[in-house]
Amino acid sequence: MIKLYGYWRSSAAYRVRIACHHKGLAFENISVNLVKGGGEQFLPGYSVLNPNKLVPTLVDGDRILNQSLAIIEYLDEAYPEKPLLPERAFDRAQVRALANNIAADCHPLNNLRVLKYLGNELGQEQEAKTRWYHHWVTQAFDGLELQLEHSAGLFCFGDQVTTADLCLVPQVYNAERFNVPMGQYPRIRGIVERCRALPAFELAQPELQPDAV
Amino acid sequence: MIKLYGYWRSSAAYRVRIACHHKGLAFENISVNLVKGGGEQFLPGYSVLNPNKLVPTLVDGDRILNQSLAIIEYLDEAYPEKPLLPERAFDRAQVRALANNIAADCHPLNNLRVLKYLGNELGQEQEAKTRWYHHWVTQAFDGLELQLEHSAGLFCFGDQVTTADLCLVPQVYNAERFNVPMGQYPRIRGIVERCRALPAFELAQPELQPDAV
Repeated sequence: MIKLYGYWRSSAAYRVRIACHHKGLAFENISVNLVKGGGEQFLPGYSVLNPNKLVPTLVDGDRILNQSLAIIEYLDEAYPEKPLLPERAFDRAQVRALANNIAADCHPLNNLRVLKYLGNELGQEQEAKTRWYHHWVTQAFDGLELQLEHSAGLFCFGDQVTTADLCLVPQVYNAERFNVPMGQYPRIRGIVERCRALPAFELAQPELQPDAV
Repeated sequence: MIKLYGYWRSSAAYRVRIACHHKGLAFENISVNLVKGGGEQFLPGYSVLNPNKLVPTLVDGDRILNQSLAIIEYLDEAYPEKPLLPERAFDRAQVRALANNIAADCHPLNNLRVLKYLGNELGQEQEAKTRWYHHWVTQAFDGLELQLEHSAGLFCFGDQVTTADLCLVPQVYNAERFNVPMGQYPRIRGIVERCRALPAFELAQPELQPDAV
């Protein structure tokens, strides 16, 4: 059975949970607590699976794989039912671009290790960390809202769930935690609402995970 | 003819230039100066092509595409000669993971807009910005060097040039500019040296671009 090493609140792990549920794959959720005792991702038992000491890691038989988007593309190729990418090359590329607007240009700036560095190494107070967070999310959502005008139907790209939706929903969950005002993003909000009504997204939500606090 | 909007020193544009040269595609290089007058990426003429106001953007006929990795995957699917990904699903995923170690977990933390924010908004001096830069590059290269032990041959994944190499070479170029010590990364250095000897990488190097200063 597939093993997914993740953490309830990690956006990157959340993306992969949605993908597994979307495809109806049975998987074992293994918690890597990013907070407890300085972070279990630094323990040798885990870092041998993930030398970057980040979540998620997927283990499928003897195959070990890091990086949420690489994992999702792998699942989509290895388990092609209910595809997460459209068929035509240019359509696929547009979905990948939407996904990377979040996964590359937004989320890496705002995850736990970066917020920690801002506090511990640069001596920034909570208020400056929140401004930092809001700044990068707003940059990304401003661009995305414009792009969705051309690409979206019910979901980020047309009327089918794609990898872009798997990135968007965890990012919005995260933004809500940090009280980012979402008023100016009607398209993003509509898509997220429709996604959240789907079983795969419901099952994957952080609060339902066994390691949720 | 393909148009590539980029900037000579942008790592993300550099990746796509290598891909184009690798595949022998004729393309027109259009400079978006990220520095002059606060940045040409903010001008309306460009931001309509790239609502995130970042480089690169590829225009292939009537197709407009953002995000370097999405562009490279598109080029690889639309122009399949000299593929940049291996054939098997798990191999492809490993290459994508190596690429994202740089493109998602390292480069977005260290690009121009982030270093600017650290200075202008958080009042950090050059010394703190350099420490920040070194910290995230070192994190990424430490993990990558370990992973390359399993994946690398002449290049990041086996003996063929892949997307992972297209991400690595610009990141190392960038790290060298910031004087990141590279002594503890013999595998990375070996791969970069072999890449740099190839015509596609040579032609794509920043100093050879028409907008280089």
